[in-house]
Amino acid sequence: MNNTLIQPRTLSGFRDRLPQEAYAKASILEKVSEVFLSYGFMPIETPHLEYADILVKQGSEEIQKELYRFRDHGDRDVALRFDQTVPLARFITQHRHELIMPFKRYVIGNVFRGERAQKGRYREFTQCDFDFIGSDSLSCDAEILQVIYSSLSALGLQEFTIWVNHRDILNGIFAHFGLHENIESGLRIIDKLDKIGLDEVQKELQKELQITAEKAQEICKLVTIKQTSHYSEFFKEIAYLKDYNDALRKGLQDLESMFNILDDLELDISSCRINFSIARGLGYYTGIVYETTLNRLKSIGSVCSGGRYDNLTQSFSKERLSGVGASIGLDRLIAALMELGILELHGTAVRALLIVTNDAYFAFAHKIAEALRHSNVKAEVYPDAVKIKKSLGYANAKGHEFGVIIGDEEFQTKTLSVKNMTSGIQIEKVSFLHTLQIIRNS
Amino acid sequence: MNNTLIQPRTLSGFRDRLPQEAYAKASILEKVSEVFLSYGFMPIETPHLEYADILVKQGSEEIQKELYRFRDHGDRDVALRFDQTVPLARFITQHRHELIMPFKRYVIGNVFRGERAQKGRYREFTQCDFDFIGSDSLSCDAEILQVIYSSLSALGLQEFTIWVNHRDILNGIFAHFGLHENIESGLRIIDKLDKIGLDEVQKELQKELQITAEKAQEICKLVTIKQTSHYSEFFKEIAYLKDYNDALRKGLQDLESMFNILDDLELDISSCRINFSIARGLGYYTGIVYETTLNRLKSIGSVCSGGRYDNLTQSFSKERLSGVGASIGLDRLIAALMELGILELHGTAVRALLIVTNDAYFAFAHKIAEALRHSNVKAEVYPDAVKIKKSLGYANAKGHEFGVIIGDEEFQTKTLSVKNMTSGIQIEKVSFLHTLQIIRNS
Repeated sequence: MNNTLIQPRTLSGFRDRLPQEAYAKASILEKVSEVFLSYGFMPIETPHLEYADILVKQGSEEIQKELYRFRDHGDRDVALRFDQTVPLARFITQHRHELIMPFKRYVIGNVFRGERAQKGRYREFTQCDFDFIGSDSLSCDAEILQVIYSSLSALGLQEFTIWVNHRDILNGIFAHFGLHENIESGLRIIDKLDKIGLDEVQKELQKELQITAEKAQEICKLVTIKQTSHYSEFFKEIAYLKDYNDALRKGLQDLESMFNILDDLELDISSCRINFSIARGLGYYTGIVYETTLNRLKSIGSVCSGGRYDNLTQSFSKERLSGVGASIGLDRLIAALMELGILELHGTAVRALLIVTNDAYFAFAHKIAEALRHSNVKAEVYPDAVKIKKSLGYANAKGHEFGVIIGDEEFQTKTLSVKNMTSGIQIEKVSFLHTLQIIRNS
Repeated sequence: MNNTLIQPRTLSGFRDRLPQEAYAKASILEKVSEVFLSYGFMPIETPHLEYADILVKQGSEEIQKELYRFRDHGDRDVALRFDQTVPLARFITQHRHELIMPFKRYVIGNVFRGERAQKGRYREFTQCDFDFIGSDSLSCDAEILQVIYSSLSALGLQEFTIWVNHRDILNGIFAHFGLHENIESGLRIIDKLDKIGLDEVQKELQKELQITAEKAQEICKLVTIKQTSHYSEFFKEIAYLKDYNDALRKGLQDLESMFNILDDLELDISSCRINFSIARGLGYYTGIVYETTLNRLKSIGSVCSGGRYDNLTQSFSKERLSGVGASIGLDRLIAALMELGILELHGTAVRALLIVTNDAYFAFAHKIAEALRHSNVKAEVYPDAVKIKKSLGYANAKGHEFGVIIGDEEFQTKTLSVKNMTSGIQIEKVSFLHTLQIIRNS
């Protein structure tokens, strides 16, 4: 064997998660999964690797460039998935006869994009999607917003805003100015509002759509409309727009119907706000769309976005299946929770560390650890009979609340000495039940 | 856009998991994670994609052939991970100064091997590993066996056997016959015992090690020793082997010490049985090794295997770090649980389906669903106001226990009609609290 050492390293844009963060992530996923399940969404899994043609057809040009695509052992043209939506479309068409419609699924998994590496952007990241397929009803749109609200609330987030819009409102605005042909470029420019600011958007609209400065200004005036009052007031204020054209009427009616469903729920209706500038870059949205920003950390952008699309499975099937769904950007959300100090980080999940001073005491230590676990106190045994100071150092570093020491005297009398790692107070030679009491009362 | 439809399909050896199975898998992972955490193991994550040289050096030749290896956008030589052990070694060396030793981690994730496709073997599969790094103590070996036992028990498995051996016992047996040089080939042949049977093993030993039939027979006699009595009896019976050589003495002493730790625990000691033929193919094991078979389904092979290794990080560092760990083959385990009828399959996690006969009732329906969820009854709203028969058909197909119907009269009186989907009994126009009572009492 060649004995040259290999430098341990990860690929640029890829990374490890150390225990504290991985544990926090697992807790987050457990909480959001529980929310998804409680609304009737069920998990599915699809492979990380797919035939490239499955992924390529629906991806944008940019995404095709970023695809991890290669030839496998059988010379098949394969690629790592870049999102969870295209695999969902493939999945639904392939298993159509096994699925019950409407179909509600969530999926948690990693996707891969060979983007240029930059701060906070990774080439492998975790997406957490939930979608409601096979119904045009606004009840679904309302439910997806409820799930976003419940998920973020379950994670301890309180101050966030779900910005809501409808594609038909933007379509209607452009149509109103006779720009039916330019909707796509228009949306692309509007989508940059947060990045480049209103002045630049106006200039770009003027230039790219070849319109007057006045027209560009009027468009900007409309797309920057944001709800500031209660939604019922707001819809009165902008009722005049319904007369502009059918698209605007449809968009506003859909939004109002959805808000009427949400109005009477525990969801804080003021955290859902209509914002005509929300375009969502992706071409496939056709109805209500939304983005979610954290009020105290707007700079990180949307942590959960989604909307309604008309024809999910069009690449694979002639059957029209519409749906509505959203995606939580988990890596971004974790970064935000950390920055807001909401994310609890723990070095260990166990509360007590059993410590022995002699190899002969391990059987007893494991028996005590087991008894603690059966009493719902997670516990572990320090594996080496070393100086107590060293074992306690481990407990300190990992964050155990208690060191439970088995020295010679304790072993002979079948007792335990319990050290509270925070206060430093040690109670000598007590029974198991007393130990349990000390731990439970802390 | 090209309108040719793409045939929806997965790559050979890859597959989707439909909701029922994905939900069962998620429940399994939740249960085993809870066990790992309760013993002080913490999760970590490493990327699916690594520099190929990281993975290649430690992989066997066979695994190198099966590696999904390609050039990425930056012309880097990269590959999908084929196990969780090599990434662990890389992880530990890379983050050495951030980790507290001894280090206990678990990891749940998919690995990729381009094996020839065959029934029950997949090219992407889920591994669930837990390892205890940085201690030579037998307390660790004992704990890993406890975790195997607790994990399988937590999944409802009762009749399984953890077959335990020690590499030094096999080394000692071969050394006893003067075959120090041939241990590796010897182990490889012994490892095939289950597949080819004792006669063939004997013939192969004779041929490959160029020994007499008598010697081969004597080796076979020793390696087929299996514990049939209580371990304390068994160690008395085979005590004479300790005099053969140091390796046998060390192997037997280690096993006995470990059994002494396990003896007094809730773990059914009779489910751990010494079996001298357990070799574990992988070269890196150096101490106690084990495999786990299901008594009622031996044919599927080991569902959890592992052992102690001496030098995990040798490719990356001069520091010697030994460890002990095991891996649950999750796909095989799920298949086994299904075959044994232990795996509960559910079409939905929610108990009640809210049904409306008019779009105007959705706000009320969502309010009721929310109130049910707040009372710990998972519930969802059927999204379309269609014929009640159709909505109830959905409840039937998915497995909801209750249909909660909001028709015209119910809506006007703010009551609910509750249909028990199993008995078919429908109770008309009752209050929310009455509804909750009906569901809770069922």
